[in-house]
Amino acid sequence: MTFELSILGSNGALPAHGRHPTAQILNHNECYFLLDCGEGTQMRLDANNLKRGRINQIFISHLHGDHYYGLMGLITSYILLGRQQKLTVFAPPGLQSIIDVHIDIHDPNNGFEIEIIELPEPNSPALCYESSAIEVYYFPLQHRITCYGYFFKEVKQKRNVIKSKIEEYNLSVEEIIALKDGHNINRNGTDIQNKLLTKDPKAQRSYAYCTDTLPIAHHFNLLKNCDLLYHESTFLHDDEERALQTFHTTTKQAAAVAKQLNAHQLIIGHFSAKYKNLDPLLQEAKAIFENSALALEGEKFKIAYQQVAELNAQ
Amino acid sequence: MTFELSILGSNGALPAHGRHPTAQILNHNECYFLLDCGEGTQMRLDANNLKRGRINQIFISHLHGDHYYGLMGLITSYILLGRQQKLTVFAPPGLQSIIDVHIDIHDPNNGFEIEIIELPEPNSPALCYESSAIEVYYFPLQHRITCYGYFFKEVKQKRNVIKSKIEEYNLSVEEIIALKDGHNINRNGTDIQNKLLTKDPKAQRSYAYCTDTLPIAHHFNLLKNCDLLYHESTFLHDDEERALQTFHTTTKQAAAVAKQLNAHQLIIGHFSAKYKNLDPLLQEAKAIFENSALALEGEKFKIAYQQVAELNAQ
Repeated sequence: MTFELSILGSNGALPAHGRHPTAQILNHNECYFLLDCGEGTQMRLDANNLKRGRINQIFISHLHGDHYYGLMGLITSYILLGRQQKLTVFAPPGLQSIIDVHIDIHDPNNGFEIEIIELPEPNSPALCYESSAIEVYYFPLQHRITCYGYFFKEVKQKRNVIKSKIEEYNLSVEEIIALKDGHNINRNGTDIQNKLLTKDPKAQRSYAYCTDTLPIAHHFNLLKNCDLLYHESTFLHDDEERALQTFHTTTKQAAAVAKQLNAHQLIIGHFSAKYKNLDPLLQEAKAIFENSALALEGEKFKIAYQQVAELNAQ
Repeated sequence: MTFELSILGSNGALPAHGRHPTAQILNHNECYFLLDCGEGTQMRLDANNLKRGRINQIFISHLHGDHYYGLMGLITSYILLGRQQKLTVFAPPGLQSIIDVHIDIHDPNNGFEIEIIELPEPNSPALCYESSAIEVYYFPLQHRITCYGYFFKEVKQKRNVIKSKIEEYNLSVEEIIALKDGHNINRNGTDIQNKLLTKDPKAQRSYAYCTDTLPIAHHFNLLKNCDLLYHESTFLHDDEERALQTFHTTTKQAAAVAKQLNAHQLIIGHFSAKYKNLDPLLQEAKAIFENSALALEGEKFKIAYQQVAELNAQ
């Protein structure tokens, strides 16, 4: 099942060096979740051959322009293209009135429903979206204005019954369902342990998206062992003070977060316009957390299954 | 003196085929006038090596998103870059409240003044901006919402006194000033005709910008003989009916306007997303008005001096 992140834009507030403001597509089984929507996102989707019609949910981190200025253009294009499918936009409070001033999203002539869900500020991670395949949690970040991170986690799959055991134990349909749910079965008054007849399901893959913010607090248990962590890293570490003043993060701080969370891979982004060459940022992150990468535009990051055994050992 | 148009974006409402929404820079003597500001304009300025700091006046045709969605990002970037210079934005009524919802443009911390001039709908061309070098008129177009065209015309220069005549007639400073203003001078009770002592100044070059609209009315005398005419041409002529319904123009209609106005050159743009190949649009326009060109992104159009004699003969 596809689980892949595409970087559409990863620059900080000021577009520079041909780099665009923040936007990402998280493709889960061909459902596209759009994370932030900086100016030009619809053109970046085209440039990356990502069909905008596959986006049904958009998650906005905060209401600074470089994270939402592309939303009006995207919605206008949906209207022009005759979109029928409902669109849901999750964001901190305030987005509704901003969009309303440009587009009458309640106009029945739009042809499709746009639901803007203004999420109240939570103290800890809270579920904001779920389907049969994935759950999305949002959590507070520390920025100059209300800002949320989003955490995507696959829904836990049922256990896999070992094919050869079906014949060996002549398992009934009811027994197979019970085994998939983790129960034991009974033969001649004796319990047969579930783990003798089943295999662990694939691990639940996860992606954590954290921008713009000071280094995120490490006490979010939910994010521990996440497969892929995007953490903003606006500055090199020698700009630590500026990062603190502007509520941003340095490379070393982002890498330390990845380490604390025991993430499998770290992607750093939201680069300051002051850096034309991004290699030094990557080097600083890698010195602390080896499996780090730059969120370069056009790059795709596959979120791979980790072995459950490996996870248990962590 | 430079007078040059740069095309930043020329697609219709829906960005497609790598083409961006409308934006143009008119460079007059290194003053940059920005005409419309579709989504992504600030990135297109960078891509075309046009310094955004040189823009002090912006002219918005109308409040459909593909003509102004880039304005918020541009203004935000100016704030981030510490702009000091005042910025003036001319637009139909309604822009102020749109911008206000995103950016508190009256915040003294912005560091620079933004003046939004909401132009009242005129019946005929009206002056909206003038400097010692150029005058800008706006005029009503026919679109689904209030929409303005803009006409840029160089200020008329004074007559050039022929150098050899200064000595021959021992002209005083006062006489030279009078001659430059077109007056005759007097020698021994006899008038000496101005045209014997002076040459015509260079012609006043002009640029007319017309989008989005039905073919513009041909009774705007002001636009007659304009050097460069940008007229939208959203559709090929076989889509005449659709053009009429949507208040747009076809290639043939745009070319007919150029002919009626006796323009020197026509640029067509605001292309529908349905056309990947734009050559047929150009061919249709050229069949009626030979000196036609496509508003391709990255193209520059120099506005050359026409001979005054040539103009008089027209």
